[in-house]
Amino acid sequence: MLKNFEKPKSEDKDALKAEIKELKERLKMQQQLIRDAKLPVLVLVEGWAAAGKGSLINEWISEIDPRFYNVVSPVVLPEKEERYPFLYQYAKSIPENGKIMFMDSGWMEGAVRKYLRRDITKDQYKARIRSVNEFERQLRDAGYLVLKIFVHISKEEQFRRISALREDPATEWRVTEDDLWQHREYDKFLETYNQFMEKTEEAAKWHIMDGSRRKMSVRDSLKLLVKKIDKALEEGKYNGEPFEEDFPLLSMPKLAEVDLSPTIEDEEYKKQLKKLQKRLSELHNIIYRKKIPVILCYEGWDAAGKGGNIRRVAYPLDPRGFDVMPIASPLPHELARQYLWRFWIRLPRTGHVAIFDRTWYGRVMVERLEGFCTENDWKRAYNEINEFERQLTDWGAVVLKFWIHIDPETQLARFTDRQNTPEKQWKITEEDWRNRDKWPQYEVAVDEMLEKTSTENAPWFIIESNDKKYARIRTLEIIVDALERACEEQLERGLV
Amino acid sequence: MLKNFEKPKSEDKDALKAEIKELKERLKMQQQLIRDAKLPVLVLVEGWAAAGKGSLINEWISEIDPRFYNVVSPVVLPEKEERYPFLYQYAKSIPENGKIMFMDSGWMEGAVRKYLRRDITKDQYKARIRSVNEFERQLRDAGYLVLKIFVHISKEEQFRRISALREDPATEWRVTEDDLWQHREYDKFLETYNQFMEKTEEAAKWHIMDGSRRKMSVRDSLKLLVKKIDKALEEGKYNGEPFEEDFPLLSMPKLAEVDLSPTIEDEEYKKQLKKLQKRLSELHNIIYRKKIPVILCYEGWDAAGKGGNIRRVAYPLDPRGFDVMPIASPLPHELARQYLWRFWIRLPRTGHVAIFDRTWYGRVMVERLEGFCTENDWKRAYNEINEFERQLTDWGAVVLKFWIHIDPETQLARFTDRQNTPEKQWKITEEDWRNRDKWPQYEVAVDEMLEKTSTENAPWFIIESNDKKYARIRTLEIIVDALERACEEQLERGLV
Repeated sequence: MLKNFEKPKSEDKDALKAEIKELKERLKMQQQLIRDAKLPVLVLVEGWAAAGKGSLINEWISEIDPRFYNVVSPVVLPEKEERYPFLYQYAKSIPENGKIMFMDSGWMEGAVRKYLRRDITKDQYKARIRSVNEFERQLRDAGYLVLKIFVHISKEEQFRRISALREDPATEWRVTEDDLWQHREYDKFLETYNQFMEKTEEAAKWHIMDGSRRKMSVRDSLKLLVKKIDKALEEGKYNGEPFEEDFPLLSMPKLAEVDLSPTIEDEEYKKQLKKLQKRLSELHNIIYRKKIPVILCYEGWDAAGKGGNIRRVAYPLDPRGFDVMPIASPLPHELARQYLWRFWIRLPRTGHVAIFDRTWYGRVMVERLEGFCTENDWKRAYNEINEFERQLTDWGAVVLKFWIHIDPETQLARFTDRQNTPEKQWKITEEDWRNRDKWPQYEVAVDEMLEKTSTENAPWFIIESNDKKYARIRTLEIIVDALERACEEQLERGLV
Repeated sequence: MLKNFEKPKSEDKDALKAEIKELKERLKMQQQLIRDAKLPVLVLVEGWAAAGKGSLINEWISEIDPRFYNVVSPVVLPEKEERYPFLYQYAKSIPENGKIMFMDSGWMEGAVRKYLRRDITKDQYKARIRSVNEFERQLRDAGYLVLKIFVHISKEEQFRRISALREDPATEWRVTEDDLWQHREYDKFLETYNQFMEKTEEAAKWHIMDGSRRKMSVRDSLKLLVKKIDKALEEGKYNGEPFEEDFPLLSMPKLAEVDLSPTIEDEEYKKQLKKLQKRLSELHNIIYRKKIPVILCYEGWDAAGKGGNIRRVAYPLDPRGFDVMPIASPLPHELARQYLWRFWIRLPRTGHVAIFDRTWYGRVMVERLEGFCTENDWKRAYNEINEFERQLTDWGAVVLKFWIHIDPETQLARFTDRQNTPEKQWKITEEDWRNRDKWPQYEVAVDEMLEKTSTENAPWFIIESNDKKYARIRTLEIIVDALERACEEQLERGLV
């Protein structure tokens, strides 16, 4: 709880200085250990305007090697100018393994300020608090050391500091309208900060520093950093246990139960395709203007017809308003961060469509089966993904997920055709044949995935694709239908 | 030259349709070849508002696999909102090897519109034309296929289209104020487009399409694409020859001539350090408000004291306003693009400081000596780098480059010390010793680099660092001095 600190007993200045020096030296030494242990460290620094967050960070970094840390200061944009989900700018900045990132104001400021400004509703604010807990837990479970510090000063102290800044022409410009507003509303902020901190200690505790005693807070915060890093290094990289959260799941059939016989006549296909594409084109205009983000996820068997399906969906879209994201194996700099990072950075802006050709579900399919992550990792992922997708739909996104489905016989026929047709040979590799051998294992994984991640807000659709044309029409129908509804609902709901 | 097209002889509709279909099929086939040949393809589409650029791109991509292309539509921001250099948003979007990128309006629109709006002066406009030629040549020389298309319609045709868009409530919003202004000023635009095209054909020619005949222009542009791609595939990846451009070079001493004896007394060091850091802190405030971007480049021998030097410069800076960019070996996705790409994307925003710990000069040092690029590549790089840095200083950036210099004996002493001190051992690797063996070769490369790339606008400074403290004071002095001047000059000069 934030309260005015008691006047501490005065300390010997030289002793304090020596202590700080020694702690800086230790932090400097830890850097190498952090690097060797590939430990990612995220230090969030929140606090009052003029409390001295920046200069605290400056003290910490003064001795450490600039190659191993990074300071980030996200901007709090007015809600109507935000083009990305709430956590986006924090999620995209997370450090890679072996590095420290200091964040000067982050998700606490981003949520509290907007709530008090009434940029967001109470419900939206609550959703943000929940997503903060999810975000911090996901980082912790992926082995991140997340350290949260709040730099506290009293209203009187803030008054003195803001006045001093304003009196000096060289620093006057640093005091913003927002800061003055915070000062006027100090009590309301105090209450809300307290609530926020109380509600966001599930995965990482808050540590409060007395901003009015500069040297002491430098010492205390350095002590905290050094201690927590030592502890993290000693305990080794944490690998979070899976656990079950309650999501509104839709009931899904097992793949083996799906009837793959539906087909469509050529004439009917052409007619429907034209009609649906025309409507999709119109809807793209509307979602662009209404700033609804759309995220289409494609997964499916090799040779199921994902590519052709995506092309038919993309064709009527204005190329300025959509992107296809082909997802391959993660690159080294992607592997060095929490696994959802590479998807966070690929999210569309509001009003845009992102088509993911393969997705974050690789975690519970190929990464699970090939042992590219631990059992804890993929088991945890069902929840983590549900949370991630809820954060997207809370933001106002339409999230649709397609499993493009065929049976093994159809796959064999298509593989053989590719093998025997010179201009298609590049589409078939040894790996495809190897994956085919693992069909039964994949089927188990896919069934489990569909069962555990088809939520009301981000549903899965199994698309019968033995007849590719039928599959395209089905997919287009589902997209058009969902966008129609989103365009109607949006006024009621408002963007989160 | 843009002129109204003559009415073409009418063509058989079905034949045209068949032709388009066949061309799309060929483009689809070429994708695989582009991928195999690792050819990067950049297609720039410029043209009049409402000329149909978007729908043309849409036709091209309708049959190709979305994993292999990308459509980008850069925004023309008002100059005062621009936080990055002119070419930044184009340079950061260049495709990687084996992929096609379609850019819907790009550097032509970005330059012409701002010039006609008087957002930039005539001189700034000229500088942009020059940088466009440099940019296109650099891409070509790095093996890119750069294709430039202009979609032309007459003033009458534009009137018809804009009117049609405005009459339909579903499309009315698409006509912007800017489009109406262009239409009113059609003749001025026409003249300027013509001039721009005439002046930017050095590395890549313009191809004009008749936007008023949709089907024909689809056919003609597809034909062009297919032909140019075939040609590029046939000729193999181009590797540009080096050539000499005239830059205002500063005379630099050979490294062997540098007197490394200067030292500084401890007392004096502390006094100077404090004074200079204080001033740097004040200057950081001013450059932040004046929106001057600052780029500090560090190169030097291993163990010369780069890290400690950077720390002393970074310490007084507000951590929210600077970033240290440690530059390691390029990652796969960086190697897959023109080599300056990874530096473009790391440029600071206006008012921010970027400290590069190692830089783009790796090209003419380690990459040259270790054979990581061709001889043409590193020989071309001197010019390419001078051009790149001129683009940065044209933008208004302060660019300072430091060669942190020691002699081989000092290096040996420091290496040995690191080897013998447990907490420093991580700083010394086998590779450092191997590099040390190549001191003479490196010295030749560094001398050549200093000779060829120390320009008036982006000078090199050799920093005597046998005494690290002396080196830090020297560097700080140079930085403070340059920022003082930049703050004074900026009003006269204005940001480009």
